[in-house]
Amino acid sequence: MRNAEDLTLADDRPLVALTMGDVAGVGPEVIARAWPDSPLRALARPVVIGCAEALQRAVVSCSLDLEVRRVDRPESAEPTDQIIPCLEVPGVDVLDVPLGKVDARAGRAAYEFLITAIDLALAGRVDAITTMPLNKESLHAGGVPYPGHTEILADRCRVPRHAMMLYLPPREGSREGLGVIHVTLHVPLRKVFDLLTVDRVVETIVLASESMRPLLDGRVPRVAVAGLNPHAGEHGLFGDEEIRIIGPAVTRASAEGVSVEGPIAADTLFARALDGEFDAVVAMYHDQGHVALKTIGFDQAVNITLGLPIVRTSVAHGTAFDIAGMGIVRTDSLIAAVRVAGQLARPKLSVG
Amino acid sequence: MRNAEDLTLADDRPLVALTMGDVAGVGPEVIARAWPDSPLRALARPVVIGCAEALQRAVVSCSLDLEVRRVDRPESAEPTDQIIPCLEVPGVDVLDVPLGKVDARAGRAAYEFLITAIDLALAGRVDAITTMPLNKESLHAGGVPYPGHTEILADRCRVPRHAMMLYLPPREGSREGLGVIHVTLHVPLRKVFDLLTVDRVVETIVLASESMRPLLDGRVPRVAVAGLNPHAGEHGLFGDEEIRIIGPAVTRASAEGVSVEGPIAADTLFARALDGEFDAVVAMYHDQGHVALKTIGFDQAVNITLGLPIVRTSVAHGTAFDIAGMGIVRTDSLIAAVRVAGQLARPKLSVG
Repeated sequence: MRNAEDLTLADDRPLVALTMGDVAGVGPEVIARAWPDSPLRALARPVVIGCAEALQRAVVSCSLDLEVRRVDRPESAEPTDQIIPCLEVPGVDVLDVPLGKVDARAGRAAYEFLITAIDLALAGRVDAITTMPLNKESLHAGGVPYPGHTEILADRCRVPRHAMMLYLPPREGSREGLGVIHVTLHVPLRKVFDLLTVDRVVETIVLASESMRPLLDGRVPRVAVAGLNPHAGEHGLFGDEEIRIIGPAVTRASAEGVSVEGPIAADTLFARALDGEFDAVVAMYHDQGHVALKTIGFDQAVNITLGLPIVRTSVAHGTAFDIAGMGIVRTDSLIAAVRVAGQLARPKLSVG
Repeated sequence: MRNAEDLTLADDRPLVALTMGDVAGVGPEVIARAWPDSPLRALARPVVIGCAEALQRAVVSCSLDLEVRRVDRPESAEPTDQIIPCLEVPGVDVLDVPLGKVDARAGRAAYEFLITAIDLALAGRVDAITTMPLNKESLHAGGVPYPGHTEILADRCRVPRHAMMLYLPPREGSREGLGVIHVTLHVPLRKVFDLLTVDRVVETIVLASESMRPLLDGRVPRVAVAGLNPHAGEHGLFGDEEIRIIGPAVTRASAEGVSVEGPIAADTLFARALDGEFDAVVAMYHDQGHVALKTIGFDQAVNITLGLPIVRTSVAHGTAFDIAGMGIVRTDSLIAAVRVAGQLARPKLSVG
């Protein structure tokens, strides 16, 4: 009965390529533990991109009764509570990679899994990508000169304009989630000042507004923009980026029709947004947004890469080398990431 | 019966000077609304330093049945559920100050209230100070060239080494609170890089450890130090302050006997600390600490100024000009600030 239902639903649910990430980290384990949980597949049809044998090992070490079934084409994936479909990436050798350590082979493999998934998405053969974490040191050891997922995606998709949104799905008692989007990301804090421009802030505001729509049933998103300095500069007393850059950007985005307010002092902004005053927050740098959302909702947060021609979500946690293989991982973020990928991919399907 | 109890307790409870702050903001209203609430006086004997008539007006506009009673000496204050003792500061003229606007008279008066309270504390005539918010623009308009409370306190107390701790009192289900202390504070974010030195970080770590003890019944505080850059610099990939400054500071503080770990990526650190792994977090700049604590506990957070010869706590909110006089203020932060002042002053009393 359940299998029949799975097959019936298969036509409707977007096909999501789930990359295994760095096999030395918690990725394979998180996939295995999340799998028997039906919410993972309620809004999406996931297919793992990676190494079937490494995944099967994780299943066994978690004492789970699941079959990892190799598929040649993602389209033929038929995930069920008991079956994890896996598309193998050729030429990858990760079976001897020890858990919890930086390893060039694991870094290289994580990159290959990702590239395979991106190419499938660009070819329209999967509807979205959800990525498990990679380790940047392993990536570099493997000869891959990128700081992270987002930059690889941008390069491979050939887009100059992209951004990361950290999305906290609706919590108990609220109907809608909160998206936080960053103007700058994986750069030293010292470099943020050179990268902040009126154009860049305007672009990020517009991207935030456009991208939140599918998650709000098409309602116009209310966007708030954080200040850079303490108290949003307090009218120039503690810095002038609010006056020179952020304020003018908000004015221009507003003139372009975006529902937007700011700059607002970052320390009070997030509490207001979480109270339902805003749907999205534009943060100026990595930790401004990440500290807020991870402090309150670490396990549930989802990363979304905006501005790409494809849909991509990611778990918000890292490889967690320190607890890899210990059986204490949480699966909330993966489940949320696959669900959100399904939600974001759906409107595209209905248009196409 | 209740009055008798108040008088009996009067000998034990530390005397806390509560400054009115900027009268154009929510300060007087918050004091009036918090007053009938007994937790405010459970651990302290508060006496307002300010303008009695302005406070009485706030009481009336809040439709409360309270008497503001002028006292000549703080020592003679006998606060009860119905009586707010107020020590008037001479030469202050704030009765015509409109609510919700920057006003030189209100700025000047807020400064005079604070100076009076500091001098009383330095003279040992009150055991602690709790401050209501002031508005920095009003302060400047009133000819007071300081960025905020903390700097005035440091100058008047003649201490070169001080820091702000944002303290979240114990929440339901946990026995102890969390303190967040900042290495840099009211400066443009751009200036943080010049101010971060190994010495300064070590001093702040030591200060955090020493200052948390009275709030932990004397137990050794476990201190965590945040990184400055995304992912705490990720071993130098995103900045080197962790390698050059923060790491060596943690090593030195540890050698000096402090229980300390770091640098730890700021975005995951606060969730760990709130889970009970640490008692105090050392943040590198204003928003790093403020975003975390205000996002989760805005109404309850308390500011503590460390490194002074006197005890000083403050509400964590600002003057809130936009809602001044509207009767929608919350009183949690004031109640917590007065309670914590009482807790911090108590050990000093037992020693003295």
